[in-house]
Amino acid sequence: MAALEEIGAHYELELVDIGRQEHRSSGYLRINPAGFVPTLVTPDGTTLFESAAMLVYLGDRHPDAHLAPAPDDALRPAYLQWLVYMSGTISTAYKRYFYPHRFSTRQADSDNVRARAVENLLEAWALLDDALAGRAWVLGDRFSACDIYMLMYAGWFEDADAFRTRFRNVTRIAGAVAARPAVARALERHWR
Amino acid sequence: MAALEEIGAHYELELVDIGRQEHRSSGYLRINPAGFVPTLVTPDGTTLFESAAMLVYLGDRHPDAHLAPAPDDALRPAYLQWLVYMSGTISTAYKRYFYPHRFSTRQADSDNVRARAVENLLEAWALLDDALAGRAWVLGDRFSACDIYMLMYAGWFEDADAFRTRFRNVTRIAGAVAARPAVARALERHWR
Repeated sequence: MAALEEIGAHYELELVDIGRQEHRSSGYLRINPAGFVPTLVTPDGTTLFESAAMLVYLGDRHPDAHLAPAPDDALRPAYLQWLVYMSGTISTAYKRYFYPHRFSTRQADSDNVRARAVENLLEAWALLDDALAGRAWVLGDRFSACDIYMLMYAGWFEDADAFRTRFRNVTRIAGAVAARPAVARALERHWR
Repeated sequence: MAALEEIGAHYELELVDIGRQEHRSSGYLRINPAGFVPTLVTPDGTTLFESAAMLVYLGDRHPDAHLAPAPDDALRPAYLQWLVYMSGTISTAYKRYFYPHRFSTRQADSDNVRARAVENLLEAWALLDDALAGRAWVLGDRFSACDIYMLMYAGWFEDADAFRTRFRNVTRIAGAVAARPAVARALERHWR
């Protein structure tokens, strides 16, 4: 949503209440048969799940918004790498943290699965934080969709004080991202 | 590697023996401080980890190889979605299957973690297999990097007979991918 605001796109936001199982409703499954949240529906009606895929798609379709380095830009490898890293490594560790019972056939294992997920989250964030030392944005001097994506995942960490203390580079950049007017509009709309 | 063969790129292959901890050696960590395998080193010396990121990068840098629909192509959303899906959902379920002891703080939980990973793998492949009914390739009529990526992950499934029986669309397309000369060269080089 913050990416759509940065682009200045016209978009409609339909909230899906997972707690009320709305992602399993027939209406939502018509849009996205996999039942994944979120889904992006493009102007021609194509649907797209996987948030990192949405960001790559939107960034390349709207070059004027400068969310993505062009394919021949020297920063393109880092841009793609960090988006996929956050999607595959950081996001999946969060899933094990928030839904540990989904990752073992024995419910009593949940505490152990969750404890390990915390370790993985700390390792995964440390790797990214180390890479961001001295940088204004994830890619260095230029803002990109990586920064938006990182702000979202940083906000998922439950112990916000511990996060700020441990991951100073991520925290500094996340603060700068949240201060951008377009991102602030998206956050305001999200929490309204 | 199959993508590099499809592109016709000149490349050097350096195998990293994870069993012998070569991904933790000082030489490898100089190339990739995170120690992740694989790493792509571009002609200008930029390094890149996360295999889905490599495929998006290479596909866009080499449009003549037709591995990626262009950003304004109607198939671009599906292309990005399935690459990220295989990277985030299928690949991470395999990690839990092959290394279950990494996903709980209690070693005795490994059997349960692994049993759940098998269920997740079957669900994840079923979702993709259902989407591929009647298709020549993952995107429909046109070959793409998604097909190469799918062949790799299909090969990771240990019970090959069960896989072939359950996932007929994936199996049919994987067979067509493996028959491509460039892919056959990559497979031959991989197993040599």
